Amino acid sequence: MTTLIRGATLVDADASLRGDLLIENGRIAATGPNLEAPTGARIVDAGGLLLMPGGIDPHTHMELPFMGTVASDDFYSGTAAGLAGGTTSIIDFVIPNPQQSLMAAFKEWRGWAEKAAADYAFHVAITWWSDAVHREMGELATEHGVSSFKHFMAYKNAIMCDDEVLVNSFTRCLELGALPTVHAENGELVYRLQKQLVARGITGPEGHPMSRPPAVEGEAANRAIRIAEVLGAPIYVVHVSAKQALEAITRARNEGQRVFGEVLAGHLVIDDSVYRDPDFTRAAAHVMSPPFRPKEHQRALWEGLQAGHLHTTATDHCCFCAPQKAAGKDDFTKIPNGCGGIEDRMSILWHEGVNSGRLTPNEFVRVTSANAAQIFNLYPKKGSLRVGADADLVLWDPAGSRTISVKTHHQNVDFNVFEGRTVQGVVTHTFTRGLLAYERGDLRATRGHGQYLSRPTHAAYFDALKKRQ
Amino acid sequence: MTTLIRGATLVDADASLRGDLLIENGRIAATGPNLEAPTGARIVDAGGLLLMPGGIDPHTHMELPFMGTVASDDFYSGTAAGLAGGTTSIIDFVIPNPQQSLMAAFKEWRGWAEKAAADYAFHVAITWWSDAVHREMGELATEHGVSSFKHFMAYKNAIMCDDEVLVNSFTRCLELGALPTVHAENGELVYRLQKQLVARGITGPEGHPMSRPPAVEGEAANRAIRIAEVLGAPIYVVHVSAKQALEAITRARNEGQRVFGEVLAGHLVIDDSVYRDPDFTRAAAHVMSPPFRPKEHQRALWEGLQAGHLHTTATDHCCFCAPQKAAGKDDFTKIPNGCGGIEDRMSILWHEGVNSGRLTPNEFVRVTSANAAQIFNLYPKKGSLRVGADADLVLWDPAGSRTISVKTHHQNVDFNVFEGRTVQGVVTHTFTRGLLAYERGDLRATRGHGQYLSRPTHAAYFDALKKRQ
Amino acid sequence: MTTLIRGATLVDADASLRGDLLIENGRIAATGPNLEAPTGARIVDAGGLLLMPGGIDPHTHMELPFMGTVASDDFYSGTAAGLAGGTTSIIDFVIPNPQQSLMAAFKEWRGWAEKAAADYAFHVAITWWSDAVHREMGELATEHGVSSFKHFMAYKNAIMCDDEVLVNSFTRCLELGALPTVHAENGELVYRLQKQLVARGITGPEGHPMSRPPAVEGEAANRAIRIAEVLGAPIYVVHVSAKQALEAITRARNEGQRVFGEVLAGHLVIDDSVYRDPDFTRAAAHVMSPPFRPKEHQRALWEGLQAGHLHTTATDHCCFCAPQKAAGKDDFTKIPNGCGGIEDRMSILWHEGVNSGRLTPNEFVRVTSANAAQIFNLYPKKGSLRVGADADLVLWDPAGSRTISVKTHHQNVDFNVFEGRTVQGVVTHTFTRGLLAYERGDLRATRGHGQYLSRPTHAAYFDALKKRQ
Amino acid sequence: MTTLIRGATLVDADASLRGDLLIENGRIAATGPNLEAPTGARIVDAGGLLLMPGGIDPHTHMELPFMGTVASDDFYSGTAAGLAGGTTSIIDFVIPNPQQSLMAAFKEWRGWAEKAAADYAFHVAITWWSDAVHREMGELATEHGVSSFKHFMAYKNAIMCDDEVLVNSFTRCLELGALPTVHAENGELVYRLQKQLVARGITGPEGHPMSRPPAVEGEAANRAIRIAEVLGAPIYVVHVSAKQALEAITRARNEGQRVFGEVLAGHLVIDDSVYRDPDFTRAAAHVMSPPFRPKEHQRALWEGLQAGHLHTTATDHCCFCAPQKAAGKDDFTKIPNGCGGIEDRMSILWHEGVNSGRLTPNEFVRVTSANAAQIFNLYPKKGSLRVGADADLVLWDPAGSRTISVKTHHQNVDFNVFEGRTVQGVVTHTFTRGLLAYERGDLRATRGHGQYLSRPTHAAYFDALKKRQ
Repeated sequence: MTTLIRGATLVDADASLRGDLLIENGRIAATGPNLEAPTGARIVDAGGLLLMPGGIDPHTHMELPFMGTVASDDFYSGTAAGLAGGTTSIIDFVIPNPQQSLMAAFKEWRGWAEKAAADYAFHVAITWWSDAVHREMGELATEHGVSSFKHFMAYKNAIMCDDEVLVNSFTRCLELGALPTVHAENGELVYRLQKQLVARGITGPEGHPMSRPPAVEGEAANRAIRIAEVLGAPIYVVHVSAKQALEAITRARNEGQRVFGEVLAGHLVIDDSVYRDPDFTRAAAHVMSPPFRPKEHQRALWEGLQAGHLHTTATDHCCFCAPQKAAGKDDFTKIPNGCGGIEDRMSILWHEGVNSGRLTPNEFVRVTSANAAQIFNLYPKKGSLRVGADADLVLWDPAGSRTISVKTHHQNVDFNVFEGRTVQGVVTHTFTRGLLAYERGDLRATRGHGQYLSRPTHAAYFDALKKRQ
Repeated sequence: MTTLIRGATLVDADASLRGDLLIENGRIAATGPNLEAPTGARIVDAGGLLLMPGGIDPHTHMELPFMGTVASDDFYSGTAAGLAGGTTSIIDFVIPNPQQSLMAAFKEWRGWAEKAAADYAFHVAITWWSDAVHREMGELATEHGVSSFKHFMAYKNAIMCDDEVLVNSFTRCLELGALPTVHAENGELVYRLQKQLVARGITGPEGHPMSRPPAVEGEAANRAIRIAEVLGAPIYVVHVSAKQALEAITRARNEGQRVFGEVLAGHLVIDDSVYRDPDFTRAAAHVMSPPFRPKEHQRALWEGLQAGHLHTTATDHCCFCAPQKAAGKDDFTKIPNGCGGIEDRMSILWHEGVNSGRLTPNEFVRVTSANAAQIFNLYPKKGSLRVGADADLVLWDPAGSRTISVKTHHQNVDFNVFEGRTVQGVVTHTFTRGLLAYERGDLRATRGHGQYLSRPTHAAYFDALKKRQ
Repeated sequence: MTTLIRGATLVDADASLRGDLLIENGRIAATGPNLEAPTGARIVDAGGLLLMPGGIDPHTHMELPFMGTVASDDFYSGTAAGLAGGTTSIIDFVIPNPQQSLMAAFKEWRGWAEKAAADYAFHVAITWWSDAVHREMGELATEHGVSSFKHFMAYKNAIMCDDEVLVNSFTRCLELGALPTVHAENGELVYRLQKQLVARGITGPEGHPMSRPPAVEGEAANRAIRIAEVLGAPIYVVHVSAKQALEAITRARNEGQRVFGEVLAGHLVIDDSVYRDPDFTRAAAHVMSPPFRPKEHQRALWEGLQAGHLHTTATDHCCFCAPQKAAGKDDFTKIPNGCGGIEDRMSILWHEGVNSGRLTPNEFVRVTSANAAQIFNLYPKKGSLRVGADADLVLWDPAGSRTISVKTHHQNVDFNVFEGRTVQGVVTHTFTRGLLAYERGDLRATRGHGQYLSRPTHAAYFDALKKRQ
Repeated sequence: MTTLIRGATLVDADASLRGDLLIENGRIAATGPNLEAPTGARIVDAGGLLLMPGGIDPHTHMELPFMGTVASDDFYSGTAAGLAGGTTSIIDFVIPNPQQSLMAAFKEWRGWAEKAAADYAFHVAITWWSDAVHREMGELATEHGVSSFKHFMAYKNAIMCDDEVLVNSFTRCLELGALPTVHAENGELVYRLQKQLVARGITGPEGHPMSRPPAVEGEAANRAIRIAEVLGAPIYVVHVSAKQALEAITRARNEGQRVFGEVLAGHLVIDDSVYRDPDFTRAAAHVMSPPFRPKEHQRALWEGLQAGHLHTTATDHCCFCAPQKAAGKDDFTKIPNGCGGIEDRMSILWHEGVNSGRLTPNEFVRVTSANAAQIFNLYPKKGSLRVGADADLVLWDPAGSRTISVKTHHQNVDFNVFEGRTVQGVVTHTFTRGLLAYERGDLRATRGHGQYLSRPTHAAYFDALKKRQ
């Protein structure tokens, strides 16, 4: 359907300009002042609204099998909730078990994702090493559009990579032109602290952050970054939550290294007092890794976003309902790790980022959309308002406000970590490849509308890296 | 004249795409694959070439009266040389004498600049303080398109600002939505060191860098930045040459402060050994402030560019010929300070920045053009390949090479600080508002073609700053 | 009187050893296990107690004429209170008015100090510049034992030094082998902020910290340190209260520069919430410069002490009673700046420093005594338990505790900034040159017992500095 | 034998004073001005000389079996050479093989060491983990005076510890009051780089530093420090050679962590150009790990010593002669790692440290002797001039000079990494427990005179650490 959006302020990563935008065949056909409406086009009056590239959440886990259960938001419900909040693409994770074929796992996830209402891509996790892993990484990268691989430095005795796997896999990534990413927590220390805490009788959710202090994250971030430095590889650190990890990124970037950092909406605004909530259900609902941190870390994370050391904002959307969380009632180490957030990321970022003067609207577009598209090689098809780009768009009312609540959210989970926060700055319309999927409270997500996003290897920064060797 | 550039790689600040570009009425009329050529259009075959926004040099001093003489490149010859090197806009400086009316000085400079072959804007220097200065800053900002003001922290007993002037002027800039910029060197220390050195009998050019050590620059940069922080103002540090100054910028940026940094092409590649040249003429030809630095600073400056703590590249183009430099034959403090460079900045940045793998071509566009346009509020009219932008364009041959020399350059000066360097990556065509001013060695600059660029106040970052107060 | 202290743990800056200590003629005559008691010697049983060098407070202002009034503790009452708290030496300040002769001021202060109950030395402030100042600095240093000079970077239109004075005076200090010290706050910014705040109607004590934010202190500290670096001089920053100032010190020290830092007991434990006390008297009682800071600065200051970037602990003891503070009832800029503390510094440092595990007892001796003695060239006569040293001693009961209160303190002021704090670790006996001046609650300070401490120039670090030039 | 040293300047860690020193029964019996000579005492006229505590080298490997050969200096020849250079104590290493009993190895080393001419202690390396290792650590600490344990993070497939062993052993150390120390290089990366280099045909000594770049050391140092932080343990990093490792130490220390750093005399003055020497023998003679570094690292290391972030100076004395080094003629990874230095450390530190103005003579005593004694709990028996301390003394002629050479040194090795350097500042006399073992060129070392130094656990800093938990 042809659509003309009229009278908006087009806010791109680099500039804001008044004008119209024409959608044809799911793509942006034209932008500029006073565009003529083609016959039969739907006209959307966007007076007073901002028109921006739809959000990209580069870190989600829909229907993930994890810690003996499965995440409650599936690819349909999760992406639909994203559309309600202005997010039009996700990058989810294929996580093979150790010894499992990467291709087999990839196909399994691809199957699950077919129901998605918005576009999606995949990172694939490297959880073990063998010649087969080496070979399948190549197959995924060259034939299946997987140009980033994930490494967990935590979860000992499960999916944790030791240094040998990191070195092998980063080397392979560089060879393929794929981006290695890391979950940075020293799993050996987490394991030791968990055992010590439980031995001391600390079994409730308050033990969760005590078992994963900031230094544990900072160490792992630094290690991964320095391994990448030595090998000449780029690196992306997911869900940076501690200033120590940010400092590791900052140090490396200040030396000219290609390091990218991601921060979660939750880590930017929620502190660790949630774990001291006497109500187990509420405290457990916040259990995720890395955990929420003392307030000083939040300030540091915002500064990292402002300074350009953190590039993307994500959610690590991975929902578990109270009955699932209850598995850890007597032992915090058994609480399924994960929180929701895909629906509220954009609003939280706008309210706390733009309204506070930390970010300009253009910078908002960068950290919610354009940077993720550039880093993960989806740009400018995603993340921009360029003519020719996919019409993944969000109309934003900077004057509107809403109060976030589990009662009104579309996520398939019984808790909202942002519960009760009133945000100014709300989505009025969301388009996914031209399809109007959300309009002022009315969510019209279409099951299966989402397409798999094949991501080429060798994003722009790889050429520069190659010249350095 | 309508021009169709065919088959180029269009390199913008955010992405590189193969395609064509159509110029009509001095503006970019269309971009995309396989554009149709309007009747009568000139066709430029750009196969194998990169098409980029023309360079912006935000720091030049054409025909500046300084230290008893006048800079040898005037607005015509200087901008023409710029066109030969791919630079299509400059921002020059109006420098009133203490006690002189700002408006009077501004008018004088405007007159001199009418002969320019490329577009130009002006920063105005604040060299003293009074109610009249306060009032005229307002007049310049609101009626004459001057949205940045310069402050010299060096040159004691001449144009140096003390803290009181800085505080007054930064406050006024913030009020006006104008950007304060600083030449950061502690003038009191320079004065003391100059006197000590001359007293010790060190009167040759080797005394110049000794009188302006890096700490002198680092201190002043930190001071200006912290004054801006306390007042809530943005700040731009010109010609950052010392890692100490870069560190001051980095510290503040890492805390979320709006600080911008500029680096000169010369400081990126030339070290302080030039001052120990036994030939006075050659040594004196390198005398500028801040001086060229030991090699370790060059590495730091490149890292600052890569990390995004330095945003723009400039030249401080301010030419003096050997007979002018000879004024300081017996006393280095009397050598007119200044070097050329406008013609070679783009090539130096490409060769040392892109060919070395430090910068991607997109990052090259940012630091040579787009960032300056955004910071000084000329964007996207300048600094981008967006439809509607001025057709200030450069076609770049990444495979071509040339050897820089005073014998072949177009600058009106008898020395070239980059003499003998062979660079790979050369301009083939330069367009200034659609006019083809340079084509493969043939410079067709037009006297008076350049237009004054009126720059609005309140660039995008000002809204964010206002929200922080 | 000959005294034998028996069975103590002798805690020096470098080691702790069980043993006895013999005092003869006001000096330490012997230390070691099982000393024999000379005939007639007083025996002090120190079982379970620690014997340490008496405290040195390098920053006090007894009976200072300031802001239209005079500090309420005079040299007798102030030093007596110090003895009650284990402090046996002070270094006070001679502060000439601009245009006043340094020698004249010095003589005036020497007269006032004759009543002191404990030993004292003087820093002399440089508040203006002339040939006479230059000459008198030499006279003070070579003939009167003044080997440190103070510079106020705040208090515009009063005693503030501009960069020219700093450069002149630091140069002269270096020449003389004397240590320049600075009160680091950018007076220009303080002046501007005070005017802005009062204009906005903020006239209460809450305006005081707003007019002197941390950045104001950080800037000045960095400036003074870098001026010292360029000139090759050592430097000592008094009352470091903000992490920004500490970072300036840390940066320079990490580059090998000779920079010393002092921190006040109050800044280590009191935060800026005191200024929001609705009771004017209580809020005003805390008005001093630099002001108390948000909590994060306290943590940073402790870390600075632990890392060895801050060397001495002081009090800036400068008491004003409520009627004096009332001068600023309607305008916070008129509240006399200053707080007490000499009596409680040692206990606060022990309780918060040693009991918390931040400092070892030996490090406690360093930061309360030995370091000050070394830096200001009183060592080992003061600050050590070496044989031959002055018998300025404190016996310390690490198990004892007391609650600090204006009701019980000996300071001549009607407020105690540490009111109500219970500290573990108390003085049982204080000796000043062998005289037992305090014993378990009984203060026997002797008016006029204190002697002027002539301090030689060229402390140990000067030789190293000279070799660097 | 009773000895009176007359008219020296007694240079201790805290002060320098003119005076005499009396030695009785191998200990310091008295110090002070004008001591009376006991009947029969030997009188040493020390006019113009400095008398200092003998040097302590906390990092040596005498007669170490390593890489298929045995280090050429044994406990006698090595300690004798130390005495010739003013070093009177060493701390060597017991290095059990994986699976070997710690006690068995300890006894073996104790036997080898009986021939030593100067006092010695042992660190014991933890190269594997088991209940037996856990138990034997306790036995060594409580019954055999071993209060520090060493961990190699490099040497994969040999003695390398992974994170699990580090976590286990650091935890055990903390429990015992023993200090964990680390050789910080990421062994996984070294292994990968060695294989890559050899595969690329780089088999000469120039490959050695390429296989161990600074980032490899920085990563490991940071990791060990952060593991210690999380566990609450102190940590000591041996042979810090890269600024990245120093920065990791500095960061942690600036946060108040108990981290100690050691630097080798060689790393302070020798750069990596030695590996590009075309002569294999000379290049191979410099092969040690970590390798010598580019010059910028040397400046950083000196600054670390000056700032107090590096505490001790050592040599890692581990000699191999040319025929031994030749094992790696065709493969640099087979060259036995190690260089000599024990004889020249003190002179190198004085010449480059004190003569250059970086260190005062007192600071020289700290970094060559007192700090090592304090950290490893030998103080004040060793490392001080206190009455009662062992008479391990060196008389130093600051005006004397000598040229270092393999031709004149006493080390049992055919190469000297400091060959040809002329140093000003030489030993004239060395006493080991009162025995005059070296006098102006005459070495009178006594085989077996050296005694084993039992070192108690729980050095002073442990109490503070315990309070923090």
